Formats: sequence, structure tokens, C-alpha cells
Amino acid sequence: MEDIILELLRQEGDFLSGEEIGKRLHVSRSAVWKGIRKLREEGYEIQAVTNKGYCLVEQEARYNGKDLTAALKTEKMGRPLYFYEETDSTNACIRRLAQEGAPEGTLAVADVQTAGRGRRGRAWTSPKGSGIWMSLLLRPNIPPAKASLITLLSGLSVCKAIERVTGLRPQIKWPNDILLNGKKIVGILTEMECEMSDIYFVVPGIGINVNTESFPEELQQKATSLRLELGHEVSRNDLLCACMEEIESHYAKFEAAGSFLPLLEDYRKRCITLGATVRVLDREPFTADVLDLTDDGELLVRRADNGKEQVVFSGEVSIRGLQV
Amino acid sequence: MEDIILELLRQEGDFLSGEEIGKRLHVSRSAVWKGIRKLREEGYEIQAVTNKGYCLVEQEARYNGKDLTAALKTEKMGRPLYFYEETDSTNACIRRLAQEGAPEGTLAVADVQTAGRGRRGRAWTSPKGSGIWMSLLLRPNIPPAKASLITLLSGLSVCKAIERVTGLRPQIKWPNDILLNGKKIVGILTEMECEMSDIYFVVPGIGINVNTESFPEELQQKATSLRLELGHEVSRNDLLCACMEEIESHYAKFEAAGSFLPLLEDYRKRCITLGATVRVLDREPFTADVLDLTDDGELLVRRADNGKEQVVFSGEVSIRGLQV
Repeated sequence: MEDIILELLRQEGDFLSGEEIGKRLHVSRSAVWKGIRKLREEGYEIQAVTNKGYCLVEQEARYNGKDLTAALKTEKMGRPLYFYEETDSTNACIRRLAQEGAPEGTLAVADVQTAGRGRRGRAWTSPKGSGIWMSLLLRPNIPPAKASLITLLSGLSVCKAIERVTGLRPQIKWPNDILLNGKKIVGILTEMECEMSDIYFVVPGIGINVNTESFPEELQQKATSLRLELGHEVSRNDLLCACMEEIESHYAKFEAAGSFLPLLEDYRKRCITLGATVRVLDREPFTADVLDLTDDGELLVRRADNGKEQVVFSGEVSIRGLQV
Repeated sequence: MEDIILELLRQEGDFLSGEEIGKRLHVSRSAVWKGIRKLREEGYEIQAVTNKGYCLVEQEARYNGKDLTAALKTEKMGRPLYFYEETDSTNACIRRLAQEGAPEGTLAVADVQTAGRGRRGRAWTSPKGSGIWMSLLLRPNIPPAKASLITLLSGLSVCKAIERVTGLRPQIKWPNDILLNGKKIVGILTEMECEMSDIYFVVPGIGINVNTESFPEELQQKATSLRLELGHEVSRNDLLCACMEEIESHYAKFEAAGSFLPLLEDYRKRCITLGATVRVLDREPFTADVLDLTDDGELLVRRADNGKEQVVFSGEVSIRGLQV
């Protein structure tokens, strides 16, 4: 109830009488009053003037479940949206929800993660108020061997969302780190549960350093934030919504085609790994030149040791001259 | 305590005095007596004669956690072994245990599964006393894209265990069904949790129709049991232990080589799919001749519609002329 009242007041942008609100929502004036009280308890400043009614003073959207949901323009991605002031890890939240049968598009967003994780069990710092820490539930109808494409798709979508909201031009380090000036601005940990021929679900966990003001010394050469690069704050609400829109549109193209082909060119343009000399941290590490990206989003490389071409489909790849 | 007393009595095969048992185990005679009482409560028949001591009457191993663990000759596989008189699904048990940090080799065995599952959410009937329903926890250090090799490895191991214990010569329908006379005798559902470059764990869930006396009419053309094929019962204890031994030995070879190559020839010899005409139930189903198995355990086929060669790496493949 109070969600709709908030939405009404926000749209109106002026005073709206309790009677009018009640009429529009087909509820009693006392139900309206209860809704207003609840909104105030949640911290929304609502002015009340006799004979004029209620007016939302604070117009700016806040970073919470109500305002994020209201701002979403998507049909599936981010619906429903679970917002946590603090949680262990949004990936863990989504995996629990997925096991209970939550639908594709379910999103978990946290203002703070107390046990945020990066790839290979590494810690991911996700301090309060400074970033977007979110995990999405997808149930793609593709074989598990192709699931890493979801990782590429997520990386591309977040990259384009950042471009749209900030005007910056980030680059993608294959498969899915996003960099600005050679420093990491986004990390993505994609987890999956499956049987050998069917995916139960895939969870891209996305961490974006949005308004981080400073990093610990050991990270200063490796990580940066949008705020540090731009010199001003960025709205997390705008960026999160843009991410959901980009993912929704890319995912629809991916599902319709049954392949990554429609997204490949867009990805290729942003991929800093293409043409670079890399170190592949395989079972037996080797150095190679990256020749191309295959249709399946794998790296085609030429090994420095024997000149042979080889496909790299997972594992860690570091780019010469970059510390991330 | 009572486990060791049982093992002592079984090894002795004759009367052993309470004093002697106490001496060997460094415990009091009353502790010995308590152990004997516990074993009797569990259904073991133990004779007690004054001045002679205790003697285990029932020598034959029973299908339970104690006797299975005592009979295992493996170092890792089946250790620890969790035995359930009845459970929902042994795969579900192992996934829960894995999330709590259980070690590689942990095995769940059930006499009855109330919600046994096959591939693609199909039901798997697992009635009491008639089969081996078990799931194993593996944490292989391979990329997720290669996890389906664990499925092939499991199928090959169970096939060889059946050969060893029964003298029968079953065949493998790629990737991992095991058939006798064109009917299914083993089904394997392999589940996985992973991130894109690392496997958290893989769970091969193995169902073997051992002593099933009859199948419902709709399954009679599709399923059979070792007992129906042999005309006599087979020891589930012997077969389960043989499976663990085969998996342990094959898994060690697989890990050492970092590939399926050392097992490929053994698998190839038993694979009924090689050389067959098959229907591949892909996004767009097609008919094809199976030419070979690749080093990664995928099928190399020639399509009937356009004569082109193609690799089939997952999905459902049915063999012409077979109903399973």
C-alpha cells in the first residue's frame, strides 16, 4: 500500500489530499493515513497541510528496495528485487532464493556485504554506501558448457550501462573485468548449479566501485571508482537501473539467437585483451598473443613457446603491463 | 566402539572371550558388554557361552553403513560413508554435505529413495532392498567445461565393477547409461556447483538395478536388473565396494593425466553409441552417424541432412532401434 502512495506523491510533485489518494486507490482515509505514517517511519519526509493534503518533500530517490523497484524500466530483470541493508553475500542470497524456486530476473542488492567474494575464493570489499553489490538469477536454456557466455554478457551490459550513465569509455578485460585507465572498476563472479546437460541456474554477481572515495594502499594501483575517475558522485539508482535494462536487452538477443553472435561485435570493440600479449595461468602457464575471440566467446591465442594456435576457454589470463 | 568389536568377532570367526576383547581394545569388560548389547540391538546375532565368550553367528555382511565401511578397500572413495535407511535423494544429501565442507570421497547410500531423480527432472524409482542408490562427492581440479568427463568416468567405473562382480558384459550408451540386452541397468545423474573457472564440487548420483524382481509394465522394455539377467541375486555390498575401487583407480589416472585419455580406450570398447545411427535431440533435432569419440569424450558425428561433421557435447542422444 505505502509503495503506491509514495509513487502517487512522487508523480504529483505537489500536495495531494488524503481523500483524493483514498479515491484513487479505493481505500479509506484511515488506510491512507496509515500508509503515510509508515513512509515517514521509513524516513521519507512528507509534509501535511490542512485542506491541502500531503506532499513528498524529499524528491530524490534513495538507495533502497522501494525506490529502486519504482525506477526500474525492465519487465523481467530486477523483478522481484530484494534489498538488504547488510548481508553476507548477494550471490549466497540469490542461490538460496533460487533453490527455493525464485523466478528468472530475481535480483539481490546489498548496501553492505560482510562476506563479499570474488573469483577463486578471493575476498571482495564492499563497503557501505560506496558501490553496487548485486546478484541476478538467470535460468538460461543453454548447455552448461556455454554458461560462461553469461559472464561475457554481464560484463558487456555493465560496461554499456556505465557508458550511458557517465559518458566514460571503460574497457573489458576478458572474460569480464571492467577497467578504467588500467584499473578495475567492476568485478563479476558468476556461479552456477547444473546437471551435465541442463542448467538449473546461473548467478552473475556484479560488484561496481561507484562512489568509493579511496582504496587501501595495496589496491590503489589495481582498483578505482567512477567517482575517482569523474571527480563527482554517480547515482547508484541510475546506474543499477541502466544495468538491468542492458542485461534485459542483451539477454533477449542471446536467447533468441541461441548464441553470443549478436553481441560479439559490441564485446569485441570494448575488449582490451584482443591483440594483447597475455600470460595464461593454466595447469602449465604460458605466454601467448591473443589473435581473436571465437563465436563462443573463447580466446584464440598463439603460444609464444611453440607458435601454435590454441583456444583458451577459461582460467586466469593476465595482460602484460597491467597489474589487475 | 561396537564397530571394532564387530570387526574383531568377524575376523576371529569363532568364540572370543570378553576379557580378550577388552585386552585388545584396552577397555573394561563392562565396556565390551555394552558394545555387544548395542550390536544385538542393531540386529547382529551374537552367541554368548560361559568360559568361551562371544561368537558372531551371522557372518554375512549386511547392507548398512557399518558393514559397507568395513568391506571398503579404498583410501578415499566412500570415506566417510553415510548410510540412510530412507532418504529423499542421495544427490540432495551429498550437495548439503558438500556445502558444509565435506571432503572429496564422501558417499551417501540409501536403501530407499523417496524422491530419487534422473536426468532432466525425471523420476527414478528406487525401491527398498533392490538396488544401489548412491551419490559421491568429488572436487576435481578441472575447468567446469570438462566436468562431463566425470560422468563418463563414473559410467565406465560402474560398468567395469559389474563385469568384475557378475561376469556380465554390459554396454555404455553415451554419455553414461549402462545397458544389458538393450535395457537400462544403471542411470547416472551428475550435478555440479561451480564458478566459471573453478568447480566447487561434482556429484555423480548412481542408480543400479541390482536385485529388482520385476518392473512396472511401462518400463519392462526399457529397464532390467542384474538379477533378472543372471537368474540369481547379486551382493550389493560386493558391487558397491567394486564401484568405489574402480572409481578410485580411474579418478587417480584422470587427475594425474589431467585428461580422459588414459580411460578413453576402455570407454570406447564398451560404448554402444560408437558407429550407431543416432537422433540428437538438440534445439533443432537431427539424425547422424556417430564417427568417433573425441579426446574430450564428446561425440563426433556426421549429420544425415547435410553430410557435415559436427561435435555433440551434451544433450540427449537416442540410438535408433533402442527404446532406452
